[in-house]
Amino acid sequence: MTSASVIRRLLRSVSGGQGTDASGADRHTRKAVTLCRALLSQRGEASGAAIAREVLASYNALQGRALEAFFDALAREFSPDPKEVERAAEAYRMEPTQTELVRLMKVVEPSRQELFRRLNLASGGTAALVEMRRAVLHRLNSHPDWTGIEADLAHLLDSWFNRGFLVLQRIDWSTSALILEKLIQYEAVHAIQGWKDLRRRLQADRRCFAFFHPALPDEPIIFIEVALTRGISDEVQTLLDPESPVTDPSRANCAIFYSITNCQEGLRGISLGSFLIKQVAEILGREFPRLKTFSTLSPVPGFRVWLSDAQEQLAGVPGGASLAKQLRCLDEPDWHTRADLAGALEEPLLHLCAYYLLHAKRDEEPFDPVARFHLGNGARMEKLNWLADTSGPGMERSAGIMVNYVYELDDIERNHEAYANRREIVCAAKFLLLARQCPLARRARPRS
Amino acid sequence: MTSASVIRRLLRSVSGGQGTDASGADRHTRKAVTLCRALLSQRGEASGAAIAREVLASYNALQGRALEAFFDALAREFSPDPKEVERAAEAYRMEPTQTELVRLMKVVEPSRQELFRRLNLASGGTAALVEMRRAVLHRLNSHPDWTGIEADLAHLLDSWFNRGFLVLQRIDWSTSALILEKLIQYEAVHAIQGWKDLRRRLQADRRCFAFFHPALPDEPIIFIEVALTRGISDEVQTLLDPESPVTDPSRANCAIFYSITNCQEGLRGISLGSFLIKQVAEILGREFPRLKTFSTLSPVPGFRVWLSDAQEQLAGVPGGASLAKQLRCLDEPDWHTRADLAGALEEPLLHLCAYYLLHAKRDEEPFDPVARFHLGNGARMEKLNWLADTSGPGMERSAGIMVNYVYELDDIERNHEAYANRREIVCAAKFLLLARQCPLARRARPRS
Amino acid sequence: MTSASVIRRLLRSVSGGQGTDASGADRHTRKAVTLCRALLSQRGEASGAAIAREVLASYNALQGRALEAFFDALAREFSPDPKEVERAAEAYRMEPTQTELVRLMKVVEPSRQELFRRLNLASGGTAALVEMRRAVLHRLNSHPDWTGIEADLAHLLDSWFNRGFLVLQRIDWSTSALILEKLIQYEAVHAIQGWKDLRRRLQADRRCFAFFHPALPDEPIIFIEVALTRGISDEVQTLLDPESPVTDPSRANCAIFYSITNCQEGLRGISLGSFLIKQVAEILGREFPRLKTFSTLSPVPGFRVWLSDAQEQLAGVPGGASLAKQLRCLDEPDWHTRADLAGALEEPLLHLCAYYLLHAKRDEEPFDPVARFHLGNGARMEKLNWLADTSGPGMERSAGIMVNYVYELDDIERNHEAYANRREIVCAAKFLLLARQCPLARRARPRS
Amino acid sequence: MTSASVIRRLLRSVSGGQGTDASGADRHTRKAVTLCRALLSQRGEASGAAIAREVLASYNALQGRALEAFFDALAREFSPDPKEVERAAEAYRMEPTQTELVRLMKVVEPSRQELFRRLNLASGGTAALVEMRRAVLHRLNSHPDWTGIEADLAHLLDSWFNRGFLVLQRIDWSTSALILEKLIQYEAVHAIQGWKDLRRRLQADRRCFAFFHPALPDEPIIFIEVALTRGISDEVQTLLDPESPVTDPSRANCAIFYSITNCQEGLRGISLGSFLIKQVAEILGREFPRLKTFSTLSPVPGFRVWLSDAQEQLAGVPGGASLAKQLRCLDEPDWHTRADLAGALEEPLLHLCAYYLLHAKRDEEPFDPVARFHLGNGARMEKLNWLADTSGPGMERSAGIMVNYVYELDDIERNHEAYANRREIVCAAKFLLLARQCPLARRARPRS
Repeated sequence: MTSASVIRRLLRSVSGGQGTDASGADRHTRKAVTLCRALLSQRGEASGAAIAREVLASYNALQGRALEAFFDALAREFSPDPKEVERAAEAYRMEPTQTELVRLMKVVEPSRQELFRRLNLASGGTAALVEMRRAVLHRLNSHPDWTGIEADLAHLLDSWFNRGFLVLQRIDWSTSALILEKLIQYEAVHAIQGWKDLRRRLQADRRCFAFFHPALPDEPIIFIEVALTRGISDEVQTLLDPESPVTDPSRANCAIFYSITNCQEGLRGISLGSFLIKQVAEILGREFPRLKTFSTLSPVPGFRVWLSDAQEQLAGVPGGASLAKQLRCLDEPDWHTRADLAGALEEPLLHLCAYYLLHAKRDEEPFDPVARFHLGNGARMEKLNWLADTSGPGMERSAGIMVNYVYELDDIERNHEAYANRREIVCAAKFLLLARQCPLARRARPRS
Repeated sequence: MTSASVIRRLLRSVSGGQGTDASGADRHTRKAVTLCRALLSQRGEASGAAIAREVLASYNALQGRALEAFFDALAREFSPDPKEVERAAEAYRMEPTQTELVRLMKVVEPSRQELFRRLNLASGGTAALVEMRRAVLHRLNSHPDWTGIEADLAHLLDSWFNRGFLVLQRIDWSTSALILEKLIQYEAVHAIQGWKDLRRRLQADRRCFAFFHPALPDEPIIFIEVALTRGISDEVQTLLDPESPVTDPSRANCAIFYSITNCQEGLRGISLGSFLIKQVAEILGREFPRLKTFSTLSPVPGFRVWLSDAQEQLAGVPGGASLAKQLRCLDEPDWHTRADLAGALEEPLLHLCAYYLLHAKRDEEPFDPVARFHLGNGARMEKLNWLADTSGPGMERSAGIMVNYVYELDDIERNHEAYANRREIVCAAKFLLLARQCPLARRARPRS
Repeated sequence: MTSASVIRRLLRSVSGGQGTDASGADRHTRKAVTLCRALLSQRGEASGAAIAREVLASYNALQGRALEAFFDALAREFSPDPKEVERAAEAYRMEPTQTELVRLMKVVEPSRQELFRRLNLASGGTAALVEMRRAVLHRLNSHPDWTGIEADLAHLLDSWFNRGFLVLQRIDWSTSALILEKLIQYEAVHAIQGWKDLRRRLQADRRCFAFFHPALPDEPIIFIEVALTRGISDEVQTLLDPESPVTDPSRANCAIFYSITNCQEGLRGISLGSFLIKQVAEILGREFPRLKTFSTLSPVPGFRVWLSDAQEQLAGVPGGASLAKQLRCLDEPDWHTRADLAGALEEPLLHLCAYYLLHAKRDEEPFDPVARFHLGNGARMEKLNWLADTSGPGMERSAGIMVNYVYELDDIERNHEAYANRREIVCAAKFLLLARQCPLARRARPRS
Repeated sequence: MTSASVIRRLLRSVSGGQGTDASGADRHTRKAVTLCRALLSQRGEASGAAIAREVLASYNALQGRALEAFFDALAREFSPDPKEVERAAEAYRMEPTQTELVRLMKVVEPSRQELFRRLNLASGGTAALVEMRRAVLHRLNSHPDWTGIEADLAHLLDSWFNRGFLVLQRIDWSTSALILEKLIQYEAVHAIQGWKDLRRRLQADRRCFAFFHPALPDEPIIFIEVALTRGISDEVQTLLDPESPVTDPSRANCAIFYSITNCQEGLRGISLGSFLIKQVAEILGREFPRLKTFSTLSPVPGFRVWLSDAQEQLAGVPGGASLAKQLRCLDEPDWHTRADLAGALEEPLLHLCAYYLLHAKRDEEPFDPVARFHLGNGARMEKLNWLADTSGPGMERSAGIMVNYVYELDDIERNHEAYANRREIVCAAKFLLLARQCPLARRARPRS
């Protein structure tokens, strides 16, 4: 086919280029950008898939400076012309018709978006764009001018990874090793210790579900792990024990969501967790009519960080100074294994944790990301569990404490609205009691 | 689940409404619009799929005036605020950064788009949106203010039905009756006369391929029918004959694309035909290495219409008057079966047809839609065939003439560029000769 | 590969053969038999699949005399040696150990069975053996010496088509046209009048299920058609009407099995119908908990034949002569459309039919094949329906009468045992009453 | 359903039974046997699947003495009557017609076979019968009277696991963990050390294929592992190294079959390996046209055993005594790592091994089981490789030596015939030279 020859022609024009002193990195960047332009041209219409493949290949070869230069070019060159935008916006203001609106939208949309849509013609295109967004997000802090690239990718991916296009699949021991291996690799909450551990998490009294997208058949987008238990779990090590006996799931009355993992960094912010939890709850409810409670067993990952920052505040309130001193034990290794230390810390830490969950904020929402997620989904904060995760990460981030967030299907919508509109946190009464006992509660108005 | 109760609440607020004189149609429209608003609210976030289902149900119940009122509301209410647009556009002009661009894009995007994306959460959502665009397109002439709705749907569907997400499938006698039935129903070029006719079109010396989208598993998006023959077909009735003997496809040297049909009116303008033809040509080339020629056997559907309109011009050129008189025979039934008539008309009609294909224009492109399509794809206009389609529609639209457009994989890109950039029509030399013999060619400068 | 060359060698040895006066048919037969011998030899072990393909090809080319000669050879040549059999049988009698038994079984088994097993190595082998049995069965009456071939094939096929290897599949409009076309072709009870008729039989208030074998993926083995109705159907034309409105299956309380067809003549006698009915009843019962009654609506295909034969007996009993005279109307065309005739015949025909079903026997079982089948499966004979099938075949064979056989899951086993052990016919009381009113019942002891 | 109640009735009759002193084991055996009888009765016809399930459940509960008693009953009770057999055999001898033959076959076939066929009605029946044969085979030496059971199961399974019903599937990293786990468990030649090892064996330059049976979808029947290499591998540890770099398979010229494993002990003797090797060779040859050589890299598992037994013979031939002395080194741990020892042993061991492979016999076939298998399949013995498998089992059984058996597609049939008819071993000339240098070759006539 000619596509090959056309692409060769294109590339010769690059490699010749303006002077031979162009560095290799420059050449690679120029090659990639030239191919992007070609993909947006008439050639791109006739030979889209072939050129898209070339763009991806040349993009994948970019590294370090060359990659940054490429993104700089994407930000600079494939954006709309401010003059044209002004003109179209003014026209719409003068005559706010649908026709003018459509014109304006066309002017405002960066040609980058069309570029990305055409890149998707290549086999593997969707995966490449997800990866590209990951790369941009990764460096966005130091390159604020890439905001537009990120926004364009986010816009496209949000549209493409619409829940309506995702397929929920149960993951079990019949699933392909290719996918199972990715669970091991991606699991972000309670690391999977090899195949034996994974196998236990897929047995009769466990469930695992993931969303998949047709364009990424072997890539879970997000997955959730569930234990079917009698009574709400208040401690995670038992759940995770690969040697624990398998129980009869038909006798369970609780479904414990003990892990939920977003697999694709490049899809960050494209919220699917809420859909996943609710749909899995419905499926399990149908399969096991005896299930009464759907609850998470979740870490409090921001707790220890907040606690360090709160030392100063603590020093300023009655009783706070001695507590602050006591908290120093948290830095001792394995303090939770020493009964005296653990006993002394239990009460004050639970008070502080309840206070943290209810009152520590970031932009009016809970500072704790897990709390933000489940409360935003309409869950109720139900219970604090002491020494519930004594793994390394559990102790380091959450001081070993875990929370049950309960999903009551009938209340989800009301809870979500209360939270979304008024930032109300729906929780069990006990939480308020615990939080009130925290020394920090004695200050006039809590702030974080 | 509560979703039901919330929706009931929502709907009560509508049916009560301001005054009892609201007609039924009004009430139905208001209900649908209220649900749309709910879908965009916090409730929509918590119970998206449930509300989306309700919107679709209430939308499906709308008819006539109520449906028009609904679209009116969509156009009016879910568009951006011109003031805000102006402000954001001005900010971008002052400071054309990516950050301002992103802000502007957000302001400019109608909330309708988010509405449509959320509608897609309902099962069947994609199909409903395709259908909605069909309904809007159908009435767009009389409702120009719906342009924005159409554009928003087109924008979304163009993104969702990106070639990268489509799956090419061979259609044969193992395909489900559900899908085969749709081929019978959709086929737009040479109507399929029931199952026997269809069966013949799927036998060993025929091929049929379609694009499918994962969200519409039983709906072909576009399909193509191919005959594997020895020599280029110059006549379609033989190809279509259900009684014709099945030949050995491995001995064929030509693949004749004799029909290509876009199935979904709601996807009009989302061009997939070019991808389909090229990919099918590649597949067939691999399966049958002896294939040398990939050609269409296509109608000239705009020819007779143009011919009527051209009578006057014809009258004004030397030799034209007598020809115009002769052409009146075209209105006689079955003229093509009378050897004398057919013999007398052959030459002048072929001249006119060649002239028509080369010189009759609409916006600088060929007036003939089929010519526009294949030339735009990079095909070469190869040959005119006399009395090649003597079916009713073939005689009425194309005066029985058919064209072979040849796809030469090595030339497609060059042809496409020549056409796209300079409107050059690539054709066999014979066409120029034929066209030059047409009386109309004697005028100073051809126009249509 | 060499297989080709070896086979060529084999065949040369045949075509040369003993003298050139061998007719073509002879040559073909000899070729096939030679290949069979090769398949059983060492060559067959090394190149089984290749030789098996050749055997099938040469077998398929046999016709008429040549085919008969081939079967003659199969019967003659591939049977055990009577002497050896006697020796082994005597050894077993002397010393009835398992070891001697195994030896005896090996001697007794004709090498034909191994031949057939090796034929199955060729792709399409299973289908070919089913077809071969059909061909043998077809001619068995005139070739009683082929009994052994038939028995060997039956033995193998019975083992291979064990219910445990069959897969029940629902047939609906999503099924491939390839399979649906076969339903049209095979349906033996109520002929399917093309695709429109078929489509109606697959809609929401109808069900169709078939058994498939993994080695014949596109060939239904046996299929059943069911209507989901309110009340037991007493008339079949309504059920079959392609224009009849589709009703809501969830409101049905009866499942009417109105057609069951064995598709493969070559599997005659390998009884699967009983499994199919019971499994379908279970599936439907689970899907539609409101279903209370599982009943057939069946023809009485042996009734008219028996009736002709019974004329003489009838003449000999009181009241019989006038009845016999009356029955002559049955030969008038469309008698059922004439109210007077139909009215006069209703009562006596129902009496005769009940008498027929209860008392007409063949080898102690009911003479009527449909009665034999359903009673043998454990069904109860429930009801006679007058003018229930007025189609041509319905009138000709069953005098328009149809029977409901009811499958009561709880009684099936008991009914089956009563029938199998004591030939008891389980039926509604009404049947006895009707039969008693038949003039023939007045004879001392009913015989047929 | 009633089946349940019938079965309860059946079982009561057992548990009551003749006297209450029956031990538990007796009761369990009697229950299983009673159910077997029921399965063969009329009840079995009506409720086959249900009773079959019960038989399997009660069979699975049998252990130790109870299981043996059950098999005793199977052998005793479900065999034909010797008297009837004699009568039928005599009838056939008197009149050797097909009809008499069929009668005889029916009499000779033990009712056990029908019992087994009916057991297959239960879901999981096929797997249970495979397992039952394993159990019988396992104890056959001590229970020669179970020969008939074993033969009946073998007969059935041989028919059911006919190559024509098996499906060849490629196994790779997309295969389900359920199946992959079984490869780890079953691999009999070179043990798989966990998932990492397995993963390496499934990468681009390796291939794995297995036969599956439709009734055992998650159970490989037999599988083969292949390495695609440049040059014939003469050493297996490199092939097995999980850390070895993955090479480009399209550049390979050899396919090395380095492991073939029969997974189901219960299918012992049902030879499928030959089919598997040939079909895999064909598939690979098509996928990689550059492949020139298809060779195994195989152990010599009987070598060391034979070597011990041959010490005495060795002592009796010239030069044998000193060699025998030298061979004692083989018992020293890790002798192969000591250059002097290994150097001294290389030549004599290769001579002995060549001699062993060519001349050590059992029933006229090679004593070595692997040699028997590949020579029987038509392979050629190509090359001996020194220190080719230094793993524990490799040293213990094969003294570290491995053999390449080459499959030349064009010669397979000829080789197989030579071997099958005349026990000729086809091998490279070098083998003869090596064997001739073995001291044992100096004896008058080699025997083993």
